[in-house]
Amino acid sequence: MYARPLARLIEQLQRLPGVGPKTAQRLALHILKRPESEVEALAQALVEAKKQIGLCSVCFHLSSEPVCEICRNPNRENNTICVVADSRDVIALEKTREFKGKYHVLGGVISPMDGIGPEQLTITPLLRRVSQQQPKEVILAISPSVEGETTTLYVGQLLKPFTKVTRIAFGLPVGGDLEYADEITLARALEGRRELD
Amino acid sequence: MYARPLARLIEQLQRLPGVGPKTAQRLALHILKRPESEVEALAQALVEAKKQIGLCSVCFHLSSEPVCEICRNPNRENNTICVVADSRDVIALEKTREFKGKYHVLGGVISPMDGIGPEQLTITPLLRRVSQQQPKEVILAISPSVEGETTTLYVGQLLKPFTKVTRIAFGLPVGGDLEYADEITLARALEGRRELD
Repeated sequence: MYARPLARLIEQLQRLPGVGPKTAQRLALHILKRPESEVEALAQALVEAKKQIGLCSVCFHLSSEPVCEICRNPNRENNTICVVADSRDVIALEKTREFKGKYHVLGGVISPMDGIGPEQLTITPLLRRVSQQQPKEVILAISPSVEGETTTLYVGQLLKPFTKVTRIAFGLPVGGDLEYADEITLARALEGRRELD
Repeated sequence: MYARPLARLIEQLQRLPGVGPKTAQRLALHILKRPESEVEALAQALVEAKKQIGLCSVCFHLSSEPVCEICRNPNRENNTICVVADSRDVIALEKTREFKGKYHVLGGVISPMDGIGPEQLTITPLLRRVSQQQPKEVILAISPSVEGETTTLYVGQLLKPFTKVTRIAFGLPVGGDLEYADEITLARALEGRRELD
């Protein structure tokens, strides 16, 4: 039904997350209608991003340099390290413009079901970094799933001998409605209550 | 916030239809996690599809050969031509396995608002084809939007002197609920009623 190069393109596009056969077909037909220069720009961007981007040797965030922009930035505080599961969490936190310290990307969460143990994550480099740099505080910012909680507790225990370890707050999302919050979130919100100032 | 090659990739991905900043970021981060060979396969599929696929010189369907597979297929009837707006309509109709004739892809519908007049479509080649081949029937299978209707009426008038011209039926979709059908669809369904056989 499809000409062979089109079939191959659709097949390749279907490997992307969230792209099923229908979307892949729509994307492929769109691509065929664009000028050749535009298609080549996309292909080149793909290959170059993959070739040029590796992991920062300090914090394991995505970086095109051996040490990433955040780690190299002299205006960022060295005394706070925020530990996250994934590079996308760094990007999300950077968008808030609230955090002025540095990061550490674990590369995932502990998940025995998926065969991911602590040794698959960058926990050993984190321990080395913390024991050497002696930051004032390490903030654990890991999503509160079962695996995320396990990871938070595990990493927290390991870091406690070296520094103050905190975790981000969980509670009602801003704009959220108390009535519609699930019980676990509500329990967390109660537990995390603070005195009015 | 993003390393430059990553920013460029996200920017390129955002040009795809239905891909906003969030999806582009998710796709890009996914791509960076895949092995280099896989990323290169995708890039190559993009460039090759664009380079190798053009339009069939007979029916204007997407094709990697000068004449497409459907037009070359000796088992397909020459005496019926189904006129559609776009190559994706050919693909949709082929999936039904109901139609054994040939196609003609107009390349769009008449839409003065978008600056698309009859001369931007493959209407002249269609007229030439019909007057030369003298098919028994031309089926117009164009979506019933305002522009689609205009195109159906326009092309229908031009073809009538040469052959029998029909259009596909509009009515309730199979599995559809009469109660929830819009009035125009219901009116079309009534208008298109047939005697029980």
